[in-house]
Amino acid sequence: MFDPVEKLKEFIRHPSISADSMQKEGMLGAQKFVSSILGELGFKVEVVPTAMHPIVYAERIGNPAWPHVVIYGHYDVQPADPLNLWKTPAFEPTIIGTRIYGRGAADNKGPLMTNIAAIGYLLEKNPNLPLNITFLVEGEEEMGSPSFPEFLKTYAARLKKADFVYLSDTLLPTPDQVVITCGLRGMTLFDLQVTGPKSDLHSGLHGGVLRNPIQALTEICASLHTPDGRVNVPGFYDDVLDVHPWEREQLKKLGGDEKKYAEFLGIDSFYTSPGLTPFEAVRFAPTLEFNGIGGGYQGEGTKTVIPSKAFAKISCRLVANQDPDKIKQLVIAAIKSRAPSGVKLEFIDQHKGDAYVVVPPDRSNTPVDQSKVLAQAFRATDAAVQKYWGKAPLYLREGGSVPIIAQIKAATGLDSIMLGLFLPEDNLHAPNEGFSLEVMKKGIATAESIFASVAGI
Amino acid sequence: MFDPVEKLKEFIRHPSISADSMQKEGMLGAQKFVSSILGELGFKVEVVPTAMHPIVYAERIGNPAWPHVVIYGHYDVQPADPLNLWKTPAFEPTIIGTRIYGRGAADNKGPLMTNIAAIGYLLEKNPNLPLNITFLVEGEEEMGSPSFPEFLKTYAARLKKADFVYLSDTLLPTPDQVVITCGLRGMTLFDLQVTGPKSDLHSGLHGGVLRNPIQALTEICASLHTPDGRVNVPGFYDDVLDVHPWEREQLKKLGGDEKKYAEFLGIDSFYTSPGLTPFEAVRFAPTLEFNGIGGGYQGEGTKTVIPSKAFAKISCRLVANQDPDKIKQLVIAAIKSRAPSGVKLEFIDQHKGDAYVVVPPDRSNTPVDQSKVLAQAFRATDAAVQKYWGKAPLYLREGGSVPIIAQIKAATGLDSIMLGLFLPEDNLHAPNEGFSLEVMKKGIATAESIFASVAGI
Repeated sequence: MFDPVEKLKEFIRHPSISADSMQKEGMLGAQKFVSSILGELGFKVEVVPTAMHPIVYAERIGNPAWPHVVIYGHYDVQPADPLNLWKTPAFEPTIIGTRIYGRGAADNKGPLMTNIAAIGYLLEKNPNLPLNITFLVEGEEEMGSPSFPEFLKTYAARLKKADFVYLSDTLLPTPDQVVITCGLRGMTLFDLQVTGPKSDLHSGLHGGVLRNPIQALTEICASLHTPDGRVNVPGFYDDVLDVHPWEREQLKKLGGDEKKYAEFLGIDSFYTSPGLTPFEAVRFAPTLEFNGIGGGYQGEGTKTVIPSKAFAKISCRLVANQDPDKIKQLVIAAIKSRAPSGVKLEFIDQHKGDAYVVVPPDRSNTPVDQSKVLAQAFRATDAAVQKYWGKAPLYLREGGSVPIIAQIKAATGLDSIMLGLFLPEDNLHAPNEGFSLEVMKKGIATAESIFASVAGI
Repeated sequence: MFDPVEKLKEFIRHPSISADSMQKEGMLGAQKFVSSILGELGFKVEVVPTAMHPIVYAERIGNPAWPHVVIYGHYDVQPADPLNLWKTPAFEPTIIGTRIYGRGAADNKGPLMTNIAAIGYLLEKNPNLPLNITFLVEGEEEMGSPSFPEFLKTYAARLKKADFVYLSDTLLPTPDQVVITCGLRGMTLFDLQVTGPKSDLHSGLHGGVLRNPIQALTEICASLHTPDGRVNVPGFYDDVLDVHPWEREQLKKLGGDEKKYAEFLGIDSFYTSPGLTPFEAVRFAPTLEFNGIGGGYQGEGTKTVIPSKAFAKISCRLVANQDPDKIKQLVIAAIKSRAPSGVKLEFIDQHKGDAYVVVPPDRSNTPVDQSKVLAQAFRATDAAVQKYWGKAPLYLREGGSVPIIAQIKAATGLDSIMLGLFLPEDNLHAPNEGFSLEVMKKGIATAESIFASVAGI
């Protein structure tokens, strides 16, 4: 068997930034790396072309009667900028103590490698393991998986034969408390572009006669929240469902120290929707965020210009039962109704994803078919976590989004078991991303135990 | 004598962007170009070092009893971005019809070359011209002339011996209506930086618990204007003086078609302070503008980040009697009082300049000493404009800022005659800057006539 840490280093070295059209080589390198490692483990690897970045679809199918797990992961990563804030090079994996640093270390290369290694060890010990396994590793997760729906059209029929999806692309809140994520926020994203004068203007010659598009943009953006922290868009909360009591109980067990959380974030005070603690807000409430803003002169010194254009990148995180298209239309309608005179608006569609909820066995109000592989897998997961982490896992909704989970459910009926492996301090989507090698080690043992149990050995 | 158009081309080719520290070579080239052309005309040239870009100070001093004009100009230009909007290369001067295109063609290389050429022709015809002439050509005008006050400390004593300053760095509203600018707006500029969390955060994991610094920035910026177009800062208008009746009369003579002006700007509606026409607002009212805004992800596609920081570049144009430091403090105090919780503010000081007003002869309520060279020069200017442009000039305040004019007045007592040569369509500070060669030709004849008249020949 390969050394999982050395393989992870190799994986991180490929700058696989899916959103950056300059990084085609990094994307290709990461895809070939995944294909090759799965090929070496005996999988039949298909590189499925898409409109942008191909999907690695690798199968080990024996007896159709065996249980069948689909292991999901993604080989693409977020952009690494601002590069000047990295303490080690973003694409040169660096081990400091028991942590490995590099873009993608935690999201998702480390956790994916954990699950690949677990299968590797398991197959080494049990070459005839009675488990059908499909690896589904995509390259567009950080872009919102635009090609995934098209892929599902063709592959849903094959995926339907499986019993459940397993993945590690969610949070481990502390190093000893595993969380099985039972829900993910959905999202809808778009750019708002505001145009004022037809070209950039001298602010002395023309300042005072027209509405600066930056001013108009800030007026629009400032209107989208109430002072108490709610999204100020009519209808935005209409479809939000009440939180289940067992969810609040699980969250209470998680504990969490607000003071420490504020220190971690580096803020003096929280700003949440009324009636929600920060830990509840991030899981159970939808948001509207500004991911970027730009316009006019941004360089050194000054340029006394009135710019022609300004833009904001807007995203909403959505909870169960909120429809991304409906929410986007509500937000756009609010923006249009509030746009000041003298400027033109343009909306550039970005990606979207549905929210997702799975109710684990024993927590549903309706009886669960305990003979189902999904229920067995949940139980196996619970037991493996108790064994290797010393504590039962918690079952919680999480604030992040993995839109393809809802898409797989809709197209194939498959639910997902999401065992989180990245820590809050792993700096996802930020400079100095890292991943704990101790978490990786325990994660490998846990996954190995779960898959062995599902296989019935 | 040299060919002024060829020389202007040579001048434009130097990318002398003073605010861009990568353009040292362009700055040096433009400075050497100015020094060399004035040296060839017989001037004694000093290159006066400053903390950043040197000032070219060139003298032709004969008899101390002769009238003495200081001709001001600047050899630096604005940044050329966004480069993709230029139809011809920014630093490769291109003549199309009777216009020359390139960054700096109008601001200030073309007008400066006009005045250099006028002196060149005049001295060619009158080698013993009884006129003392000082050229004062700086390299930091587009940065707000930060080194000029220090320069004045040393050179004010020599400049005091002169009678007036002459320059062409203001507007020619139409090709046949010269304006002598009798007032300039002052300005004060600073950057506002807003910091939220201590590093960029994943908007899924942490969205909903803290105030996004972009949101905080937009809330602050949106608070700085009232819906009716005034600056919403307590005390902002306190020191603004009433407009003189003769100023309104002169402006009426200028005429101006609001519909055409709106078309030129490419806007549907004006947005001015109540009670002012657009043409009045740009001259007689102070403003607060956003010259730039930035924060978070600005690249292709999406990045679901909550940024740590966001910034805005803010400038105020000020009218006579408004103190830049006082206004800056008022704006900063308003911002501080409105800053939402959960973010930190930082203010980065940029440059500033006082507003300036000169009252031309016959328009003051107090009698003018008609024997003064300044009064003679104003009369000579009036006559030359009538002769070469077919119409008397108008005497108007203008919206732009040339802070050094107020500084020269304060340090030496010298007033300035500002004969504008750039047209509204010359796209100052914007892509596709250009300059009319016909204006240049008439400008040379006019300046030659003015200086001949002041010299008494």
